[in-house]
Formats: sequence, C-alpha cells, structure tokens
Amino acid sequence: MPQSLDIDADRFRETFDAYSEIGATENGGLHRLALSDADQEARDLLVEHMADLDLEIRVDEFGNTYGHRPGRDPDADPVLIGSHLDSQPYGGRYDGQLGVLTALETLRTFEDEGVETDRPVELVNWTNEEGSRFEQAMVGSGVAVGAVDLEHALSLSDAEGNTMAEELRRIGYDGDHPAEVPETHAYLELHVEQGPELEGSSASIGVVDGVFGLSWMEVTMRGQANHAGPTAMHDRRDALVAATDAASEIHDLPNRLSEDAVATVGRMDVSPNSINVIPDQVTFTVDVRSYDGEVVERAPDAVEFEVSTAAEREGVDYEFERLWSIDPLEFSPVVREAVAAGAEAAGVPYRHVVSGAGHDASYMAQVTESGMVFVPSVDGITHNESEFTEWDDCVAGAEAYANATLELAME
Amino acid sequence: MPQSLDIDADRFRETFDAYSEIGATENGGLHRLALSDADQEARDLLVEHMADLDLEIRVDEFGNTYGHRPGRDPDADPVLIGSHLDSQPYGGRYDGQLGVLTALETLRTFEDEGVETDRPVELVNWTNEEGSRFEQAMVGSGVAVGAVDLEHALSLSDAEGNTMAEELRRIGYDGDHPAEVPETHAYLELHVEQGPELEGSSASIGVVDGVFGLSWMEVTMRGQANHAGPTAMHDRRDALVAATDAASEIHDLPNRLSEDAVATVGRMDVSPNSINVIPDQVTFTVDVRSYDGEVVERAPDAVEFEVSTAAEREGVDYEFERLWSIDPLEFSPVVREAVAAGAEAAGVPYRHVVSGAGHDASYMAQVTESGMVFVPSVDGITHNESEFTEWDDCVAGAEAYANATLELAME
Repeated sequence: MPQSLDIDADRFRETFDAYSEIGATENGGLHRLALSDADQEARDLLVEHMADLDLEIRVDEFGNTYGHRPGRDPDADPVLIGSHLDSQPYGGRYDGQLGVLTALETLRTFEDEGVETDRPVELVNWTNEEGSRFEQAMVGSGVAVGAVDLEHALSLSDAEGNTMAEELRRIGYDGDHPAEVPETHAYLELHVEQGPELEGSSASIGVVDGVFGLSWMEVTMRGQANHAGPTAMHDRRDALVAATDAASEIHDLPNRLSEDAVATVGRMDVSPNSINVIPDQVTFTVDVRSYDGEVVERAPDAVEFEVSTAAEREGVDYEFERLWSIDPLEFSPVVREAVAAGAEAAGVPYRHVVSGAGHDASYMAQVTESGMVFVPSVDGITHNESEFTEWDDCVAGAEAYANATLELAME
Repeated sequence: MPQSLDIDADRFRETFDAYSEIGATENGGLHRLALSDADQEARDLLVEHMADLDLEIRVDEFGNTYGHRPGRDPDADPVLIGSHLDSQPYGGRYDGQLGVLTALETLRTFEDEGVETDRPVELVNWTNEEGSRFEQAMVGSGVAVGAVDLEHALSLSDAEGNTMAEELRRIGYDGDHPAEVPETHAYLELHVEQGPELEGSSASIGVVDGVFGLSWMEVTMRGQANHAGPTAMHDRRDALVAATDAASEIHDLPNRLSEDAVATVGRMDVSPNSINVIPDQVTFTVDVRSYDGEVVERAPDAVEFEVSTAAEREGVDYEFERLWSIDPLEFSPVVREAVAAGAEAAGVPYRHVVSGAGHDASYMAQVTESGMVFVPSVDGITHNESEFTEWDDCVAGAEAYANATLELAME
C-alpha cells in the first residue's frame, strides 16, 4: 500500500479561485485563449508559484513551461506532471487549469510533508492545448514529442493574422530551451472527464485506460436545384433529402458498430439554402469514435454504404472523403496501476474509464509511460461556461494524483 | 369554333432571339435583373416595338408598362395580356420574356390580319416579377391590384442598398400614371411550366386551371452543444439528430397528404457547425404546396407533429413558426374555356394543368377574370440557364394564345 498524502484542500481551493479570476467571464466561465493577455497573466502567476517552491524554471521555444524539483538521484529520468492553462473561448474553469493546479498542489504537498523523491518531478504547462485561437489542438505537447513540426506550429495564426511566434514573443514566453520533452520516466495528467459517465457512477475519479480512436469524413451530395413549387416529389433530385436520410442512418450506426461507438454529424452546409428552392448541394462531416480499433477502421465503409444508399434512392451523386483517422490509444499499465493504487491509498472510489477526446497525455504516450486521472463533469458539460466539477471530487482526484505521482517518482 | 390566327413563326423567333441577346449569359441563359441596365434595354426595345404597332404607351409610377390597342367600343374594359421581362440571376430565356413576346406577337398578328376587336387589348410588362434583386416576388402586379403597398414596394432595396424608387428613376421608368391596373375584362398570361408534367404528356400546351396553395414554416431545434468524443449517444441532445429525423419524415409527408402535395426543406442552418461539436441549434424551413386547400391548411399541424415527435425522441426543445400561407387559386372558367377553344381552333393538343408556383396572373385574379397558358419546360428545369422549351411548342402556345385573346376581346 503506497503512502497517502493529504493535500491542503483550502489552499487548493483558494489557488483555484485565484487562477479562475484571470480571464473570468460574467457567467462563471473562463475566456483565456492561448497566448492572450489573460494567458500571460496566468502563466506569470504559475511561474511565481513555482518560484515560491524553489523549482528550477525553464521555458522552451514554444512556450511550454517546466518547473523542476530535484530528486535524490540527479541522473534519474523525471516524472512529468501537468496540463494546460489556456481555455476554450467562453469555456469552463476546469478544463486544463484544474490539471495544472493539481500538479502544483501535489508539489506543495511534497514540500509541506518534507517528501523527498528518488526521481526528479517536473511540473509542465503546455502551450495551446485547445487549438481554438490558433487552430490546431494539443500543439505544445505535439511539438515537444516531435509529432508536430516546430516551424509549422510557430507559423499558426489567429483570425487577425497574428502568428504563434509573434504572440509568444509579445507575452514573453518565447523561451531559450529546445522545444523537446526531456527523457521522462512517466507522465501523469489530471483532467475533467468531459462526459457524464463518471458522474453517473458511484466513483469519484476515473483511471483512464486509454483514448478513443476516431475517423473523420466529409460527404457531398449533388442533386438538381429547382423551384420548390412545380416539381413533383418523384421528379426531384433533392440533395438535402439524400443528406438527411444518410445522416439519420449515420446517427443510428453506433447501435450496430459497438457498445461504445459514437457518431456525430457536426457540420452541414446547404446550397443554395433558400426556402423555395430544392437544394442542389449539401456537404456534411461525420465524426465516428470508438475504443475498438476495428470499429474505427470499419466506420468509413459503413458510413459510405449509408451515403451511397441514400444517394441512389434520391438519384443524386455523392462524393465521400476520408479526412483523418487515429487509432485508439492504450495508456501505460504502469501509470494506470499507480493511479489505482493512489486512489485506494486515499480511500477514493474509482473506476476505469476511456477518454473520448485526445489530451496532451495522448502525445506524451508516444515517448513515455503516460496516463491520466479523470474527475467527473456534472451533466458531462464541457467547452462551455457552465462546466462544473464538485469540489470534493477535485480534492479526491488531487489526493489520488499526489499519491500516484509519489509512487511513480519512487520507482 | 373561334377564328384561328396564324402567327409569323419566323418573326416571332427573330424577336425572341433579339431580346435574348439583352443580358445573355455565356451558357445560353439570361441575367437580366429587375431595373438593371439590361432590364432597361429590354424595356426600351419593347417600347420601340409597341410604338411600331401604334400602341398608346403608358408607364405607371412603379414602372409597369402598358401598350393600348383600341377596340371598336372605346368604353369597353380592355383585355390585358403580358408577363415580365426581368429574369432570375443567371436564369433562363423563357421565364417571363416568352410571355411578353407572345403578347407582342399576338398584337402584331392582329395588325397583319387587320383584326379589329370589340374591346381594347393592352400589352403589359410587369416590374420585378422575380423578386431576386429586390426580394419580393410579383411585386409589380401586386402593387397594381392594390395587394402590395406602393410605398413599401418603392422602398425595397437590393444588396447594395439601392431602392426600387431610385433604380426606376435611374433607368427612366418612374412613370406618371397611377400604379393601378385599369378596369379590365380579362387577363391572360403565357409562361413556361417550370415543371415536367406537360413535357411528359402528349400535349403541346397546358390550360392552367389554378395555382397551388402553399404554407411556409420555420423550425428551430435547440439541444446541448458538447464534445463529439466523450459524450455517449444516449447522453446527447443533438439538435441535428432531431432536425434530420424531422426532415426525413417531412419529406415523406406528401405521400400521406395528397397525390399532388410537395414538401421542401430548402434552408437549414446548423450551429456551431463544427466537425467535432454536437450541434446545439438547427433552424430549417419547410415549404408545403398543394392544389387542395385542406391539405395546405392541415400541413402545418402535420409538420409540427413530426417536429415534436423527433424533438421528444432526442430530448431537444423546438420552436415552430408559421411564416406565410396562401390558399390555392382557381383561375377564371371564362379564360380557361377561351384558351381551350383557342387551342382547339389552332389544332394544338392541350391538357389541363395546375401551377405549382405563383405568377402575376395570381394577383390579377384578385381583380378580374384571369388565366394562363403553359408551354412545356424540357426536363422541368427552370430558374437555371439550361431552361429550354421546344420552339414548336412556343409557336403552338402563341397561336392558342392569340386565338384566346381574340375571343376574349370579342365578348
């Protein structure tokens, strides 16, 4: 049974509230886009808090910010803990920030309790996880593990044409260190679940076993525009009839694919989009996800079958494009076991869950033993100002997280 | 058996080709928006051709242009014949223009054959039938019969903010005469069918018995936006699932409503319209038409039933708004009989049809005996550069039309 640490729940709460002021929205959310003034302010506060702990701070060329706490063995690979401080536009207070502050509270608890670890422990704040201002997600960790090209990432620009390179310089986070993650023993990230599964269970936290794979597709239906009055139903080639029929079947696909699969038609554009004209073109996207790699692989064929059937029935032409796919990811058994043990030591009920979305921990899994702790999202709401996690669950998550970090740093 | 007139098919063709040059598109269509330079040029040519026939020309305050041919009885109400010279954006050469030129050819034939009518006959070119540049359709005839307010119509503006009043002045068609249709014995308009029914029959022309009624609705589905990954299908409130399910049922409604009913979802707007976000709001329009007044009246309830069922199934809220409805219209039996007799006299096979779309003749039916002749549209295509009618059908239509005009002018 590993050691059980008690975090300072009041301090943790005060810290969380202080960071939540930076970029706060009227409705209790956060609007703290990557490399904005608010992001700079939050980063500066984190640097101050890391300095208070005598951490050795370094900023890399992409603004990823590390705080190093030495271990007994200076040559051992460190354990890396953290998440991201940037938010969605008018997003919630938990997504990202809670993970960074849990890592901070973990190191503060180590300090309080005089914990010395064998391995160094490093706190990290990743740049631009959300990908909403600069449209590529998880790009800081992607660059750090070598999966995303640094020059490409620096050249990403926002809607006003400002590049990430310019904005990093402007807020003073264009660091000197190479944008490469150090040799690392393990990576552990706490995050809100962004789904309702944990909330609906009796568990306070989730041990994340892995991440769904996904397949993105784009479909275009092409029919014949015509006047909505004089054209009998059987003489029509209505692109929207075909698109809505296909979408209805696609929404039903998860029932036939697997228990965990989800399918979303998120975007649909209709042309000419006029009340009294039969649509001649409809383009829509399909997002299918599952933890089962075979399901992800079979999804495009299943979707195209529904598309072709609907198109043929209505007599329209279609185009089908596979945009992107990623395989499901299984997190490190070492980290999963450390989290489960840490929860048990803290007396926190947990269950095993799978993440439907990608996280910085997904990129980290390419280079080290990587894993995650989830805390419940009330009503599963996320990317929204009303995102909320019960504070007791945040504390339970932080204690399990601190215990797991300690165990990983003692290996 | 009424008299049968022979039109001059070569002259008719030459005239049609000359007008088709004005605003011609590369692909054989017409781009002659209301009150554009091209519309002015076509109007000027019509005035010239009416002057060649010694017609007494008058332009009203809304640019509706009349050419008066006296009858033997100067006190008798005239027979009014014509259509519109404006086109859809990149529309066809037949929609509107063919009706004006058939009326012109009718008066030329009267002149050739020395026909004197009891009643005066007046040719009319209505302003802005299409309603595509200034967004209200059939507005010239609507103003003339008192159904549309003149000041409102003059204040309609195009996408650049130019009003109809300004543009009428600019092209010199802000006339002195009051924008009121004169006391009229009957109105007759020839138009392309804009549907495939005639083409699929053995008839060369259609005697139009009436016009479909219609009901326009707007539906908004409101669900919950969420991340497309971590939200299980049964935890979703996806506005697009509800919308596509409802649309599929709405597309199937005509089968249950009546043999002639049509239903169109022409516009659909999705929010936030992003590939990996579950849509929280979808707004779409519904256009239902039928010649059966009861069907038009029942349609909104039938549509709302499908909307509410789909909304309930997906757990989303909905709003349902009735935007507009018009009852089916039956054209004058007097005019229908005159057209049928005119076709018989010319040896032109005809059938009775119903118009799915409104025309200037619909407004004219509010003040006089009104009716229409349809000629076939190949493949039923309209509002499109590839709109096409066989020239033999145009000639057959013109002869039946001339005969019917003569008969009405002799009553």
